[in-house]
Amino acid sequence: MIKAAVLGATGYAGIELVRLLTNHPEVNIEILGSKSFAGQKISEVYKNFNHVLEKECEELDIEKVSKCDVAFTALPHGASKEVIPSLIDKGLKVIDLSGDYRYDDPAVYEEWYGQKHSSPELMKEAVYGLPELHREKIKGARLIGNPGCYTTCSILGAAPLLANKIGETKNIIVDAKSGVTGAGRSASLPYQFCECTENMKAYKVATHRHTSEIEQELGNIAGEKIMLSFTPHLIPVKRGILSTIYVNLNRESSAEELTKMYKDFYKDEFFVRVKEVGDLPETKHVAGSNFVDIGVCYDKRLQRAVVVSALDNIVKGAAGQAVQNMNLLFGLDEKLGLNNPGFYL
Amino acid sequence: MIKAAVLGATGYAGIELVRLLTNHPEVNIEILGSKSFAGQKISEVYKNFNHVLEKECEELDIEKVSKCDVAFTALPHGASKEVIPSLIDKGLKVIDLSGDYRYDDPAVYEEWYGQKHSSPELMKEAVYGLPELHREKIKGARLIGNPGCYTTCSILGAAPLLANKIGETKNIIVDAKSGVTGAGRSASLPYQFCECTENMKAYKVATHRHTSEIEQELGNIAGEKIMLSFTPHLIPVKRGILSTIYVNLNRESSAEELTKMYKDFYKDEFFVRVKEVGDLPETKHVAGSNFVDIGVCYDKRLQRAVVVSALDNIVKGAAGQAVQNMNLLFGLDEKLGLNNPGFYL
Amino acid sequence: MIKAAVLGATGYAGIELVRLLTNHPEVNIEILGSKSFAGQKISEVYKNFNHVLEKECEELDIEKVSKCDVAFTALPHGASKEVIPSLIDKGLKVIDLSGDYRYDDPAVYEEWYGQKHSSPELMKEAVYGLPELHREKIKGARLIGNPGCYTTCSILGAAPLLANKIGETKNIIVDAKSGVTGAGRSASLPYQFCECTENMKAYKVATHRHTSEIEQELGNIAGEKIMLSFTPHLIPVKRGILSTIYVNLNRESSAEELTKMYKDFYKDEFFVRVKEVGDLPETKHVAGSNFVDIGVCYDKRLQRAVVVSALDNIVKGAAGQAVQNMNLLFGLDEKLGLNNPGFYL
Amino acid sequence: MIKAAVLGATGYAGIELVRLLTNHPEVNIEILGSKSFAGQKISEVYKNFNHVLEKECEELDIEKVSKCDVAFTALPHGASKEVIPSLIDKGLKVIDLSGDYRYDDPAVYEEWYGQKHSSPELMKEAVYGLPELHREKIKGARLIGNPGCYTTCSILGAAPLLANKIGETKNIIVDAKSGVTGAGRSASLPYQFCECTENMKAYKVATHRHTSEIEQELGNIAGEKIMLSFTPHLIPVKRGILSTIYVNLNRESSAEELTKMYKDFYKDEFFVRVKEVGDLPETKHVAGSNFVDIGVCYDKRLQRAVVVSALDNIVKGAAGQAVQNMNLLFGLDEKLGLNNPGFYL
Repeated sequence: MIKAAVLGATGYAGIELVRLLTNHPEVNIEILGSKSFAGQKISEVYKNFNHVLEKECEELDIEKVSKCDVAFTALPHGASKEVIPSLIDKGLKVIDLSGDYRYDDPAVYEEWYGQKHSSPELMKEAVYGLPELHREKIKGARLIGNPGCYTTCSILGAAPLLANKIGETKNIIVDAKSGVTGAGRSASLPYQFCECTENMKAYKVATHRHTSEIEQELGNIAGEKIMLSFTPHLIPVKRGILSTIYVNLNRESSAEELTKMYKDFYKDEFFVRVKEVGDLPETKHVAGSNFVDIGVCYDKRLQRAVVVSALDNIVKGAAGQAVQNMNLLFGLDEKLGLNNPGFYL
Repeated sequence: MIKAAVLGATGYAGIELVRLLTNHPEVNIEILGSKSFAGQKISEVYKNFNHVLEKECEELDIEKVSKCDVAFTALPHGASKEVIPSLIDKGLKVIDLSGDYRYDDPAVYEEWYGQKHSSPELMKEAVYGLPELHREKIKGARLIGNPGCYTTCSILGAAPLLANKIGETKNIIVDAKSGVTGAGRSASLPYQFCECTENMKAYKVATHRHTSEIEQELGNIAGEKIMLSFTPHLIPVKRGILSTIYVNLNRESSAEELTKMYKDFYKDEFFVRVKEVGDLPETKHVAGSNFVDIGVCYDKRLQRAVVVSALDNIVKGAAGQAVQNMNLLFGLDEKLGLNNPGFYL
Repeated sequence: MIKAAVLGATGYAGIELVRLLTNHPEVNIEILGSKSFAGQKISEVYKNFNHVLEKECEELDIEKVSKCDVAFTALPHGASKEVIPSLIDKGLKVIDLSGDYRYDDPAVYEEWYGQKHSSPELMKEAVYGLPELHREKIKGARLIGNPGCYTTCSILGAAPLLANKIGETKNIIVDAKSGVTGAGRSASLPYQFCECTENMKAYKVATHRHTSEIEQELGNIAGEKIMLSFTPHLIPVKRGILSTIYVNLNRESSAEELTKMYKDFYKDEFFVRVKEVGDLPETKHVAGSNFVDIGVCYDKRLQRAVVVSALDNIVKGAAGQAVQNMNLLFGLDEKLGLNNPGFYL
Repeated sequence: MIKAAVLGATGYAGIELVRLLTNHPEVNIEILGSKSFAGQKISEVYKNFNHVLEKECEELDIEKVSKCDVAFTALPHGASKEVIPSLIDKGLKVIDLSGDYRYDDPAVYEEWYGQKHSSPELMKEAVYGLPELHREKIKGARLIGNPGCYTTCSILGAAPLLANKIGETKNIIVDAKSGVTGAGRSASLPYQFCECTENMKAYKVATHRHTSEIEQELGNIAGEKIMLSFTPHLIPVKRGILSTIYVNLNRESSAEELTKMYKDFYKDEFFVRVKEVGDLPETKHVAGSNFVDIGVCYDKRLQRAVVVSALDNIVKGAAGQAVQNMNLLFGLDEKLGLNNPGFYL
């Protein structure tokens, strides 16, 4: 059994990790790290865990964590990079859910996150944890920078067009809609029920940090620097991201051709489900599961692909992807603990 | 492996059964029965099952079903009793989710359901599938009348007071609130999003069929006929029932005494979680899981217990309870396939 | 034109007052009092008011307020009673939306609110602002204790049974469900969207303060002391209260007789709509309006009335009722500014 | 008083018209046309109208309607054009909420709606009822083609950039999100509460009819043919459209310059509220009101404007705009009956 520590276990991504690991046949959760709830049982913080997991949350103790095989760090960005180097030193595999180790180039991090990085060497060593693009590298890594929720959805949605050199790299638009778990668990007026329900809004237009991740990965695929528009929106659902991606094509095509291109690109990927022509993803099809659903449309009038991709922001966009990465790191079946249909209802 | 048929697989209770059985280590789903979607894959009807279960739905074929070990009938009441006798004849164990086999006395069925029962002998033989009250009988049964959603919540909420002879049998009030999955999957104006969201209402006041089930079971516990008020309400959530139960006591008591009484009564029950004094259930603590949460308050001024119980209407109130019954029927660990925390988010 | 001050204008009840007064043909809002947002325009705090009301919020200045004809105090209980005596001294009519001036007997306030009252004489003088019961007294009052949201719904729902001496005063149960605006506007974890949506719960069972108001008013009608069970629940809608009220009857009756009794009792009340037999209220029928809808059922088996009443907690349960009281205080048509159908959608 | 007929009064746009006209000081509703509910009071169909408007719905009777001054036709497209020519013949002003009279060129209608137009001359005469662009023409019209919900939001959001010749006409993307009232009132599985809540999806990608309206109006402003991407999405709220509009600029600019450009363009428009730099619209700021809120961002890296516009799809996107047009047709203050803040809560 793999001994796992979940640091930041009481946030929304953290508790989803706990939910998934509780059902994982090869993992024992050894440590539930939580600053705010140290000393309390996880089943008091999230009462759905009563009778299922009665373990106590605790303050971070590096010595104790070092007895684990893997640490998931579901901490705020900035906090992750203070903790992770020690864990790596102790020989743990680390899967970091923050933005701290997702970049090839520390300068990009520093530009978008507005702070110096204290372990740029480690950042360079870290592998971007998107198995569908970096599976082999992930298997041998010590440190995984687990991708953001918006980014996984957007990168996987656009990748086949760029890999097949049919998508133009200019004028790519990613218009993304997210559920409210994306904002995390702390109390804040804009996320109060009465402020949030029956409302929609865009935020951080042209400035959201995930832009830089999407550009990095799509640029790597295209083999050239890419700059694109990324616009996040807040939608009154708990879970789910829907990305609508506009890519001009450099030649005529059809929905059939593009769909086949996507099916080929993802033919070995269990967690990517490319929809038939005419069918489109909905977030309720992916809620609670590790799947990404992708539908591809072709606008003949404009020679433009319109791709819609959907995932659950706290599963494939966070905790589920982290478990998928763990499976790879430890030589397990990638689907282990993740092969379920989620909850339509 | 147990070979299972799910008849009525594409309704909301049916698909929840499919979800739970897909994760059950000792079950193979052999047949997905669906009149409306025969010939279509279940993964086309509920697209969250894509890549997980690609099995086709089919029309009812008794011969084919008869090769299974167990049939779950998630059919409308009335339809169940037309099918079940043949299945029993073929030697299957049957777990019926309709109201057709829940009564000790066919006359009660006929009064509340307004139709003759075509197999009253079988009805008498059938066991009321509430494991917390009838575990031993269930183990040896051929046919289980799986309890209704409102009823499980209400019976388990009130039982300890009556079993301990502290609750008066007059003036019991059960005020219950249900999510919209309780209304099933067919399209109907009152359940359209715009009609249903931001709304609350009571319905079938003093006439809802589940009243008779609650009265039967609580009457059996009390050892005398019970008549009570049961009022169902529709609340804009998908899953969940919350029952608020008012019971006058025949002597003074305290929240502490009553809570201890409940904890004793349910001390061997994994799926019943009695809350500590001062703590109360919320439906989000039970959503997606087979748990019933119960909190007990004492109103000193009125010498009255106010009990709040919560469950997920399509799990412990339908599909999960059916799986729990199946585990008992086949000598498996009662928790198998059901030991998970549900989804708080 | 009546010169009005709204103190506490940026809470949910306060801003609803502002919305209603903006549409009132005989009122000018002179002062928008707000501690938290003093110096900001109301249209910056609630951006829906942009282009409609651009007035600035200000700190409380008794001298300035004293130039108004009427003050609405939408302040937390405890805060109201510190301000109101000075306003009364200055000759203003005051309509207080807190619990500070709702009681006949200061001892009841002190018991349920856990604090001494600093102006018990004024409390005794204040009139309980439920026009349907106290219209004539309201007209001549200086100070109105505007009823609570749960209480208006529950009192009007039960009053006819007690006034007609058919309802027993023992064993009355009020099971009430409220939308989330009832919790006010401050940020707090249990009211975050992700914690609140898809959830239901009961709270303050047997201890909620509104119990004492309901008991006072129903006791006055019955002519004897009444003690009853009142259970509030939190439901994921913004607006609306639904009360389900159980009252044993001292003789046989029928839905027809009871409905006629209610129609007679409220025959001159524009804002009370008694439903026909077989019809029941829904909160979406009253959302945004000052109406109370009441449906009456009779449970023949139990000789018990089950009454369902519905209102909008921030209109008839707060701001609308306050405007109705103001209309009475100033000799205006009681319906002025309130005669609209609310918003079904 | 203007005598008005509302044909199709029981659909969602129709009943919103009834709500607005009920509050309009210069209008009497003479006729409530409804095929499905003829013979029933409007207050039985929408019970919020009880005590406010008890008028009966009736079948269409052209002779009776002809005694009115104005008819609002809130009928399905196709049905409108069968009725309207007779009404025009009788001398009524007609405001049509369907797509039947919105086009300069019948061929465009026939292409996007897949049917011949039976009164192409009338279509050419009809004025596109967007007051912010066509006020003077509207004043003298007999027939108004009231714009679609998505279109009003999108056209007003993009117009200033094209009018000022700073926006490029290629590569315009309109990504729009709508509430569920947009789907109308009939019962249909995808709009059932349990299917719709906690879900998001795109639909009719590259094929939605409103595309053609947006292209017509923006093309007229730009003085050249425009083809653009328009993608509608379904979001689980009742009311509201949010359009995110991407327009490449032909020179460098800034948020400040663009915002000033918008403020100048709409300086005389009461119903258009241009946000300050850094501020963005939310649908809850416009719910229930006739306002359009617009925020303008500039992406310096891409020399691209990202504009976010929001309105209430059944007010400014349907019924409110129709009333605004009526005010213009009859020489009234354009704001009459529409000058209110809607409902934030």
